Amino acid sequence: MRTRLLSAPDLALLVRRVGIDTLMDDTIARLFRSCRDYDVERFDIPVRSGFFYTSPQTGLLEWMPAHEMGRGITVKLVGYHPANPSRERLPTILSALLRFDTVTGRVTGVVDGNFLTALRTGAASAVASRLLADPEARTLGLIGCGAQAVTQLHAISRVFDLARVQVFDVEPTVSASFRARVERLGIEQLTIETVAPEAVVAGADILCTQTSVAIGAGPVFADRNVPPRLHVNAVGSDFPGKTEVPRSLLERALVCPDVVAQAVHEGECQQLDGDVAGPDLPTLVRNAVDGRYPHDGVSVFDSTGWALEDHVTAEVLFAHADRLGIGADIELQSHGHDPLDPYGFVDNAAPVSAVDAARTARR
Amino acid sequence: MRTRLLSAPDLALLVRRVGIDTLMDDTIARLFRSCRDYDVERFDIPVRSGFFYTSPQTGLLEWMPAHEMGRGITVKLVGYHPANPSRERLPTILSALLRFDTVTGRVTGVVDGNFLTALRTGAASAVASRLLADPEARTLGLIGCGAQAVTQLHAISRVFDLARVQVFDVEPTVSASFRARVERLGIEQLTIETVAPEAVVAGADILCTQTSVAIGAGPVFADRNVPPRLHVNAVGSDFPGKTEVPRSLLERALVCPDVVAQAVHEGECQQLDGDVAGPDLPTLVRNAVDGRYPHDGVSVFDSTGWALEDHVTAEVLFAHADRLGIGADIELQSHGHDPLDPYGFVDNAAPVSAVDAARTARR
Repeated sequence: MRTRLLSAPDLALLVRRVGIDTLMDDTIARLFRSCRDYDVERFDIPVRSGFFYTSPQTGLLEWMPAHEMGRGITVKLVGYHPANPSRERLPTILSALLRFDTVTGRVTGVVDGNFLTALRTGAASAVASRLLADPEARTLGLIGCGAQAVTQLHAISRVFDLARVQVFDVEPTVSASFRARVERLGIEQLTIETVAPEAVVAGADILCTQTSVAIGAGPVFADRNVPPRLHVNAVGSDFPGKTEVPRSLLERALVCPDVVAQAVHEGECQQLDGDVAGPDLPTLVRNAVDGRYPHDGVSVFDSTGWALEDHVTAEVLFAHADRLGIGADIELQSHGHDPLDPYGFVDNAAPVSAVDAARTARR
Repeated sequence: MRTRLLSAPDLALLVRRVGIDTLMDDTIARLFRSCRDYDVERFDIPVRSGFFYTSPQTGLLEWMPAHEMGRGITVKLVGYHPANPSRERLPTILSALLRFDTVTGRVTGVVDGNFLTALRTGAASAVASRLLADPEARTLGLIGCGAQAVTQLHAISRVFDLARVQVFDVEPTVSASFRARVERLGIEQLTIETVAPEAVVAGADILCTQTSVAIGAGPVFADRNVPPRLHVNAVGSDFPGKTEVPRSLLERALVCPDVVAQAVHEGECQQLDGDVAGPDLPTLVRNAVDGRYPHDGVSVFDSTGWALEDHVTAEVLFAHADRLGIGADIELQSHGHDPLDPYGFVDNAAPVSAVDAARTARR
């Protein structure tokens, strides 16, 4: 009973072989198709749940399950620990994903969720922006220049012909290092400037917010000089009380959550009274005309993070890995010759972990 | 950022090195202590949730999270697919467990959950039986002789001086093979007989039920000739509508669930009206007098499976593995030199998975 393991070095190899742009393009395309074909009869995706704690550090650990009937289940485990970069030199968001078949319930795959989460969060904003933003958008604004900002820029640069990026972070060292962190993305022609948050907003065609703003401390920009057709991807709001976008802006905007039930609980939609959330991501995709959802004025994609995004991104990663023979087959789950003997696996012939023997060699 | 992987071959080595009896004894002792010290202020263990489906096979996949404040989080993913043994030659219950630290949210360990679930389910019945059954119990009855029956016998044989085991399974081949499946347990002196279910019940001091009875098809034995001081470990009831014990017996017994909120939803307690469940496992342990919870008459341990059991069993396995240097350190979760660069891990020096390099060698 084999489980395919895609660890960090496996994914590094995958990126080198496939290319980061192709992986992002595939994720965007796959997410777009999955939203178009999304059928609540075929998917069971409960609102995520988790543990929140303030000791030893402020942290959140959540489980995000998704069941695609007849095709499989994925469960992503994801932590949000905002002190990680400064205290531990680790990413704020750490994650892993398991996939299961629904014939036997066995674990068919385990994959790093850090890279996956970054990819899919970018891809979701790309899908929403393509549907909601001005197709001629040239200027991207970024508020919050951490890890998620890199993939926001990357994803949006794949679907818009960007000319300029204006960025702001409350930590000057973080905005200062942003250019170096996106150099691998082949966007040499882009102007990247650090400016004040009001200038980021005023100059943007598309604005992405991805901050670690504290609970109750939002918004992260003022509702002043907002361009009349601005599209906002509000990425950082993903916990009760944590919001980034001014309420007055939300009240006049077309607000599109990834998934309504989650967004009203932990997204920007928390700030809206009653049932005023606009179409969710699948509804946007299905009602697009010539690739765009018809609307005027300001739009906000309320991106809380949806397990469907993780589910399809895992498919992209495993499909490329399978094709290229990347990853290891491990004997994660014990069983002996007799399925009714829980200790029978102890007698199994191989005395050494199958990891060593089974690691595929087509490198 | 290393994750300790305990795969099936690692656990096989662990069992050979430590001994299955020591692992069971340690799990029983650790669970007993954890119940005694259990403090709802220190643990957050939500009622489990999951996906239930009838296509392509009848199956259930659940997540069982447990947060021990300041010490860590475990999340067990567990599938129940009753057609596995006959159709796939795989165990009915397949599982894996991840552990996390709550400082950073990283995955500190991944371990096979099949062996762990078998161990802990046995250990829970041993703890409950020691508290509730006649200390002089000599005869164990087993209804349902699959994988979980092996660990029920194993665990109870570690805390009672058993002389005789009477077993029944609706599949004669399953009861016939039971003896062979418990031979490794060093219980040569035990008489093991296959008898009719009513004889199993009538002869038992302790009775364990662990069947795959269909939803709505219970009970699995009749309330006739029940010994007046019988203790029942009802192990198989773990889903709405799935029950094993006659309602009339429950109504006159002291019914002790592992965790009340779960048992009333999916355990034998489903059959009881209103708030008539007895003390839960921690309450039993804390109110023991000379190691036994004072009561007369029939008792039932309503074992639905509790994430605390998984949490402490994982501790036992990881502690032995760490001590013996068993397992592999894998780079499951990606991160580069700069925690703010989600793609930085692609540049990491090691081009080959850390699994190969880091597997510990003290075998």
